Amino acid sequence: MKVRFEEITLSTKERWDLIDITEQVSSFVGQCKIKFGLCLINSLHSTTAIIVNEHEPGLKKDILRKVREEFPRGAGWQHDRVDDNADAHLASIFLGHSKTLPIRDRKLVRGTWQNIFLLELDGPRVRRVMFEAIGSCPSRVK
Amino acid sequence: MKVRFEEITLSTKERWDLIDITEQVSSFVGQCKIKFGLCLINSLHSTTAIIVNEHEPGLKKDILRKVREEFPRGAGWQHDRVDDNADAHLASIFLGHSKTLPIRDRKLVRGTWQNIFLLELDGPRVRRVMFEAIGSCPSRVK
Amino acid sequence: MKVRFEEITLSTKERWDLIDITEQVSSFVGQCKIKFGLCLINSLHSTTAIIVNEHEPGLKKDILRKVREEFPRGAGWQHDRVDDNADAHLASIFLGHSKTLPIRDRKLVRGTWQNIFLLELDGPRVRRVMFEAIGSCPSRVK
Repeated sequence: MKVRFEEITLSTKERWDLIDITEQVSSFVGQCKIKFGLCLINSLHSTTAIIVNEHEPGLKKDILRKVREEFPRGAGWQHDRVDDNADAHLASIFLGHSKTLPIRDRKLVRGTWQNIFLLELDGPRVRRVMFEAIGSCPSRVK
Repeated sequence: MKVRFEEITLSTKERWDLIDITEQVSSFVGQCKIKFGLCLINSLHSTTAIIVNEHEPGLKKDILRKVREEFPRGAGWQHDRVDDNADAHLASIFLGHSKTLPIRDRKLVRGTWQNIFLLELDGPRVRRVMFEAIGSCPSRVK
Repeated sequence: MKVRFEEITLSTKERWDLIDITEQVSSFVGQCKIKFGLCLINSLHSTTAIIVNEHEPGLKKDILRKVREEFPRGAGWQHDRVDDNADAHLASIFLGHSKTLPIRDRKLVRGTWQNIFLLELDGPRVRRVMFEAIGSCPSRVK
């Protein structure tokens, strides 16, 4: 049994931003030598989310539009008195700070239209995302 | 340590549909011989979701009503120019493509009112759901 | 490889309530002797959710306000004919009954503003939350 970690740093460009991190997650899984297991993609922030869906430019705009409409900025939120980003916290809570995917035959299991994104909700900022792989590692047994 | 996979195929009947897969997940866990661990229920699609809640006919209707109201079809979404299902992608993102439950004493741990459902958001289609169990397997040690 | 469980019981005070359980989860992870792995925080109910975000009094009010606005009580839900809490089930489905966090160097990995909460949606009630840690345990190998 083996556990591996990697942490990446991303600089987001806008207040709301969607950054495709599929390549980074796949590469991490490819290198970690776990044959069968799980991969956790875990943001370390309370104003971002990790989402899994299709990478299509129009859909990316729709996601950001939906987030802005669903969690309106400055709508009398109490937290805005402390830090002007209650909307970002609420969106993060509803969308989730992490996602889990299978690892099978040393590869991340994704459907054809399943890419992995960091959703920035209060940028631009520098963000940290932790990848964790846990599973079986037959080569160590040999 | 052991990892087991199973993939099921489901034919959904309507554009929006809720299919109870608790029996299939429980049966998989019962057969996989993992004593203590985790079970990931993972849809391989970007226009479905996996949810955990009560199986009650009225509630099933409420869930589908809420999804339709919250993610209205054809509301000027950009992705609809490519493929007429932006609402389904958005609902999938908010509800999540997978869920994780504990395995304890060779059984899936569920509360009394916790059933597992595939939520179809762009059917009818043929859908694939992957189950993965990971955990300890004392019998192999003996 | 090791798996550990703990179940806590909480008495919620109001219909909607947010209870910070970070201390309990951290303490469980600190005592379970798993060095690298995952921690699942899993509610056994269909009218609660587990969320991860900042502990700030204003934000707590915002979360409860958003939940009440997003899932209005008594809005003609079918499930209300059976049990007057369809809104609570719907909120639970959207927010999720569990969350997963990394364990690294025997500690729960949390960002600075990531606390863990049980969100009560149909209280006051007595609630059960299961913690599960799974991972490597080098001390047992020695």
